[in-house]
Amino acid sequence: MFLHKDKDVKEVAMDMEGAVGVVKRVLIGPQEGSDDTFMRLFTMKPGGHTPKHSHPYPHLIKWLSGMGVILDGEGKENKIEVNMSAFVPKDEEHQFRNPSDYETCSFICVIPNPDKVEK
Amino acid sequence: MFLHKDKDVKEVAMDMEGAVGVVKRVLIGPQEGSDDTFMRLFTMKPGGHTPKHSHPYPHLIKWLSGMGVILDGEGKENKIEVNMSAFVPKDEEHQFRNPSDYETCSFICVIPNPDKVEK
Repeated sequence: MFLHKDKDVKEVAMDMEGAVGVVKRVLIGPQEGSDDTFMRLFTMKPGGHTPKHSHPYPHLIKWLSGMGVILDGEGKENKIEVNMSAFVPKDEEHQFRNPSDYETCSFICVIPNPDKVEK
Repeated sequence: MFLHKDKDVKEVAMDMEGAVGVVKRVLIGPQEGSDDTFMRLFTMKPGGHTPKHSHPYPHLIKWLSGMGVILDGEGKENKIEVNMSAFVPKDEEHQFRNPSDYETCSFICVIPNPDKVEK
């Protein structure tokens, strides 16, 4: 088995168009021996957000800190915070936002290996 | 998409032989629309532990609160706490323990749908 501290995992700024203030760490992926399922840790600065997009794989979300908003495929803004989880089905348009003026937020996002997903 | 609070998810005492003081909540599974990957929340009372066992699917672990020990396939006790993650490969014997005398611990454990895993 393998274990490590979040801070020892390389952080990468999310540079997709439409991403603002988002940093990703792949906590568990191929480097840790997990080829089929990836666990990523995201942090978003106050006012930050991911792109509004969709893809052919789902998201399993566990909120860790701060407040968040998930924009769903119907354009609804769903509030999420610690002690909550969310599931975004494949192909549903979505966006994660940090609505706070002062507090960074963080969440876990689990996905199947995108390279193994039927396109 | 779907989201809910942990406390609104039914808790089930883990009644496998060798489990002590462990409660499971399936935060994301078939009921939430996720057929391939399940996200479970476990809590363990002080002194509690899961069975020492193995199975043909891995665990992706994110520790949420308290302290834990993961016994690995080589018999080594690995300490884990908040801001850490762990990966237990398929077929590796393992056990989760709460070594604290007073504090409950909690962690996320992600697995593939066991019914879809090659036995």
